[in-house]
Amino acid sequence: MELGVFSLTDIYPGGADTAASRTADIIDYGILAEQHGLDVFGIGEHHTRQFAVSSPAVVHAAIARSTKRIMLTTTATVLSVLDPVRVFQDFAQLDLVSHGRAEIIAGRSAFAEPFALFGEDISSLDELYGEKLGLLLRLRDEERVTWQGRFRPPLREAEANPRPSGDLPVWVAVGGTPSSAARAGRLGLPMALGIIGGSIDHAKRLVDVYRTAGREAGHPDEKLTVGVTSHFYVGDTTEQALEEFYPYYRRYLAPETNNGRGWRVRRQEMAALAGRRGALMVGDPGHVIAKILDLKAELGIDRFLGQVDLGGMPAQMVGDSIQRFGDVVAPSVRHALAA
Amino acid sequence: MELGVFSLTDIYPGGADTAASRTADIIDYGILAEQHGLDVFGIGEHHTRQFAVSSPAVVHAAIARSTKRIMLTTTATVLSVLDPVRVFQDFAQLDLVSHGRAEIIAGRSAFAEPFALFGEDISSLDELYGEKLGLLLRLRDEERVTWQGRFRPPLREAEANPRPSGDLPVWVAVGGTPSSAARAGRLGLPMALGIIGGSIDHAKRLVDVYRTAGREAGHPDEKLTVGVTSHFYVGDTTEQALEEFYPYYRRYLAPETNNGRGWRVRRQEMAALAGRRGALMVGDPGHVIAKILDLKAELGIDRFLGQVDLGGMPAQMVGDSIQRFGDVVAPSVRHALAA
Repeated sequence: MELGVFSLTDIYPGGADTAASRTADIIDYGILAEQHGLDVFGIGEHHTRQFAVSSPAVVHAAIARSTKRIMLTTTATVLSVLDPVRVFQDFAQLDLVSHGRAEIIAGRSAFAEPFALFGEDISSLDELYGEKLGLLLRLRDEERVTWQGRFRPPLREAEANPRPSGDLPVWVAVGGTPSSAARAGRLGLPMALGIIGGSIDHAKRLVDVYRTAGREAGHPDEKLTVGVTSHFYVGDTTEQALEEFYPYYRRYLAPETNNGRGWRVRRQEMAALAGRRGALMVGDPGHVIAKILDLKAELGIDRFLGQVDLGGMPAQMVGDSIQRFGDVVAPSVRHALAA
Repeated sequence: MELGVFSLTDIYPGGADTAASRTADIIDYGILAEQHGLDVFGIGEHHTRQFAVSSPAVVHAAIARSTKRIMLTTTATVLSVLDPVRVFQDFAQLDLVSHGRAEIIAGRSAFAEPFALFGEDISSLDELYGEKLGLLLRLRDEERVTWQGRFRPPLREAEANPRPSGDLPVWVAVGGTPSSAARAGRLGLPMALGIIGGSIDHAKRLVDVYRTAGREAGHPDEKLTVGVTSHFYVGDTTEQALEEFYPYYRRYLAPETNNGRGWRVRRQEMAALAGRRGALMVGDPGHVIAKILDLKAELGIDRFLGQVDLGGMPAQMVGDSIQRFGDVVAPSVRHALAA
């Protein structure tokens, strides 16, 4: 199983962080994740001032220069608003810079700002995403593409260059929408399932939708790959982890963090969510190991990524969590699965 | 005066180079340019398989990680076909990654492929470029932009994020078109003048057009900045430099290199072009020093950038040329100008 971490690059408005300081920290986290043996590092793409990164490929290229092995993904690329030709070029270029380590997790986004910024109509979200995902896959899989669609000018025997050096995997990001999970399955694409609330049982329903759609479309089981992402913190003890994590999690979810979206969370709600069957991956190494193994046993996941910094968490705290994940959690999970 | 080098990232089809090997070499050249004290490193943007880079911001981010001081520019960004919002975001992100060293040289492009790939109409080249340049500058200079144009959806109180940490300079790339030089002058933007043939007198006419337009528009002289780019090679002796450079230059210009565009150059034509008043910046350090000082004296330039690799030149040869430029030519030019 692949294990990794990611940042959505949020900037807590009440703190001293800036887009510059966050960008620098995130580059460090990517390097640290490789140093501690993790397999994947993800960077989000957002388009409002509450976030530091709108161009993950650019930040990943800096990380690529200081790493050799870790996979560089997006959590997620807002494909609905971007031009698939330019997305393909940016990530093919990153793939060349990183010697085959670039990956795209393609998402739809639920926010209005990126749609306004790029002039796409959010009421066509689903068709936009479907069309752009289809074109992105064709640009990846065919050197010359003749294509016509609703949302961008047609292509005639067009070549998008440069070509990547590796496979350039494309995953489908799925939040809570069953039709997105079904689409990923039908296309036989790997699914990146964001679990930000509820229990393992909620997530299982979406994984079942995905696998059923995939099998019905004739895709072999080994192609139906599932990754899970969760809010994440590994502390020394579970009690201490909850104590340390709570203020940042509360801030991050609070309405003021993200243009009034989000919700207020209470300490005991968070503790319940961090329980053995809850969505929140927070606790001591043993607790996090058990929860990841639960996801493997019950959902058959192939990858877990933890959202490792949020709400203005200090760099030291993020670094410690990455280190515990890489040094303690990951070897135990790998050992348990190899047994 | 700023001195630097750049790559257009061409891949000689008869050689062993690939987009992967060229990308790796270009990252090395950027780092080498800083190590030898040069001020600027440029990367071209092209969209056909004859070139390794379509996304200079991604490659520059890797260079930024291994450098501290050198300015990272584009030679040039094909602004006519791209969305200025995304260009702004990519380079703002590079600016954050590089701690304020990102720059854009915005060009129009004369080739059909990028227009076909992005669905823009090449017959509207001039209006496309003018509109997109105007929007790019507004996105850079204003945090909230309300805008309407012909070639992309309107913006209403839109914020393009993240904000760069530095000035994010935008230059206008000018080939041989006087109206482009006049536009750069009218806007009071720095002009990057590509000299790929003719003599210093040809170039002077375009610089005059630029300065006249700038003064007429009321821009102060110190704002009217001129950079010059030329094909470039510094050898041990001028005769040896011509001998070594010729096969690569011939290949690079030959029709087969670039979809049948270009021209065949003979050895003696090249030698004439490399003479004291010709466009070609090839020779021993003393010859190149004299030619750069001529450009300063006669055109009043503020920056010179040499196109340092082309036609499949071996990395060792490119590295030697960068080293001679940085170690011998640049100190002499700076010393002469300080005197």
